[in-house]
Amino acid sequence: MTVRVFVTGGTFDKEYDELTGQLFFRVTHVNEMLRRGRCGLEVDIETLMMVDSLEMTDAQRAAIVRACRECDEDHIVITHGTDTMVETARAIAEGVTGKTVVLTGAMVPYAFGSSDGLFNLGSAFSFVQSLPRGVYIAMNGRSFAWDDVRKNREAGVFERLEK
Amino acid sequence: MTVRVFVTGGTFDKEYDELTGQLFFRVTHVNEMLRRGRCGLEVDIETLMMVDSLEMTDAQRAAIVRACRECDEDHIVITHGTDTMVETARAIAEGVTGKTVVLTGAMVPYAFGSSDGLFNLGSAFSFVQSLPRGVYIAMNGRSFAWDDVRKNREAGVFERLEK
Amino acid sequence: MTVRVFVTGGTFDKEYDELTGQLFFRVTHVNEMLRRGRCGLEVDIETLMMVDSLEMTDAQRAAIVRACRECDEDHIVITHGTDTMVETARAIAEGVTGKTVVLTGAMVPYAFGSSDGLFNLGSAFSFVQSLPRGVYIAMNGRSFAWDDVRKNREAGVFERLEK
Amino acid sequence: MTVRVFVTGGTFDKEYDELTGQLFFRVTHVNEMLRRGRCGLEVDIETLMMVDSLEMTDAQRAAIVRACRECDEDHIVITHGTDTMVETARAIAEGVTGKTVVLTGAMVPYAFGSSDGLFNLGSAFSFVQSLPRGVYIAMNGRSFAWDDVRKNREAGVFERLEK
Repeated sequence: MTVRVFVTGGTFDKEYDELTGQLFFRVTHVNEMLRRGRCGLEVDIETLMMVDSLEMTDAQRAAIVRACRECDEDHIVITHGTDTMVETARAIAEGVTGKTVVLTGAMVPYAFGSSDGLFNLGSAFSFVQSLPRGVYIAMNGRSFAWDDVRKNREAGVFERLEK
Repeated sequence: MTVRVFVTGGTFDKEYDELTGQLFFRVTHVNEMLRRGRCGLEVDIETLMMVDSLEMTDAQRAAIVRACRECDEDHIVITHGTDTMVETARAIAEGVTGKTVVLTGAMVPYAFGSSDGLFNLGSAFSFVQSLPRGVYIAMNGRSFAWDDVRKNREAGVFERLEK
Repeated sequence: MTVRVFVTGGTFDKEYDELTGQLFFRVTHVNEMLRRGRCGLEVDIETLMMVDSLEMTDAQRAAIVRACRECDEDHIVITHGTDTMVETARAIAEGVTGKTVVLTGAMVPYAFGSSDGLFNLGSAFSFVQSLPRGVYIAMNGRSFAWDDVRKNREAGVFERLEK
Repeated sequence: MTVRVFVTGGTFDKEYDELTGQLFFRVTHVNEMLRRGRCGLEVDIETLMMVDSLEMTDAQRAAIVRACRECDEDHIVITHGTDTMVETARAIAEGVTGKTVVLTGAMVPYAFGSSDGLFNLGSAFSFVQSLPRGVYIAMNGRSFAWDDVRKNREAGVFERLEK
């Protein structure tokens, strides 16, 4: 099984620009993270965009859906900012069938010592292999169906709707 | 769902003793790692032992099997040294039924910057929720059935038997 | 010898706020950093303010000068944002005599894995013990007299004026 | 001023071998550490040996003394295991004159997240520029003359003899 990874940016991949003191995107850390996790799966990583998910446009979201639909692989992991991850999951669910798609991200950039990114990536890669076809979010050590999840912005965690 | 975690030691939890220059065990890092992963599951962590898996005795292995059998939870994650992880998985498979048990570990101690431990823990927690009943090893981003896995000591990775 | 440390903020102490995605100040990391450096000196740490040095007011700068003048210790380390470190050094030089004062900071927050902060702190603590009375900046492994230094913003390094 | 660095091994440069579970030497981390510290000095780094200082032979110690004497630079930093750092300092003091030589090391390998190595390296580089000619040990944020220092093995710190 080859897992397809689409990188879209998000906190996950933010870095610190020491000249400006701002956070910014350079290149994704996913390759380095999978090496560190000694990941033994065949993986094909493609960076679709590098954006804050709050600034993701409809056209960009449509591009993600199209990439999921048109790629050969049936198992897809998407790294994504957490703020609109649920919205993108819904768009994919409406536009893609017959595949297992897992979106994940991070609350703290991987480049920070205290990031949750590596835990979440291990989680997403495991759910994408073991869950039935459908669209899911993997955060906080759990999987959420795309239509039963929201980000609780006050607590900084994802939770089921019926909570 | 509550996930039961049994800690048994292994590279995962090794630390550096600055007075002797040796690696040693103090307490498990699993709690800290789950906090860092912002894990939202109910988790009950118990340290059964802190040993190098090469030095694990039959009595200790039997204690792990007994702990899996007697605990209330049906979803169990075990942190374990990689060298005899397969052997313990087999013992559990022979002694425990009706539960999903996932063993994981690390090639590099969590206390080292470059550890795979956080990735593996995220992976194990995800597989334990999504795989059918049975005994598995979660390493290298993959899950292995207890009777179809070996550690390739030269490469430092786990692989299927039929490979 | 007791070294007095005045904390004023700067990149050094920035942290990542996972709810807002912004960098912010909480408490200083200097204590933790000195523990990690197994620093054997007597140290007295006081947080005067926690500000970006670009936003430091004249009143705040005057408060730093006053703190240096009025404290009992003759050896003072100040953690400070790099952008106006030279300006504060000048103010101290004009207002304080008979003491060795060393300002230092970081280009990358200590909370990031790749921070220069620990190196710079080790450097500042060493220069404050070994340089004659006067006001200095310790950055990039070097010491600079307060009146012979500028921050090269394009390169992100400190350099002598006559360079 | 060019600072000459002689690497001799020690805890500083220990790494974790994930196949054997042992600590070992590969190559020095000093270059990477100076890059991280954005060190602006001219530095010439030479690895003389990579040994545990408890296993350093008389011939190796003599080679260090010779290297200090014969190099062109007057400012020398030596990375060294802590256990016999004092013994090597004495050998250098007896064999080298007219230079400032600072030995440093670490209680925890740089490859561990919690290492004191970066702090100590910043310290050593600062003392070597600011102390008068002589042979010193830079540890615990302090400098010690070669003939007034011992390693307190129980506490894991360096201290003056008259303490």
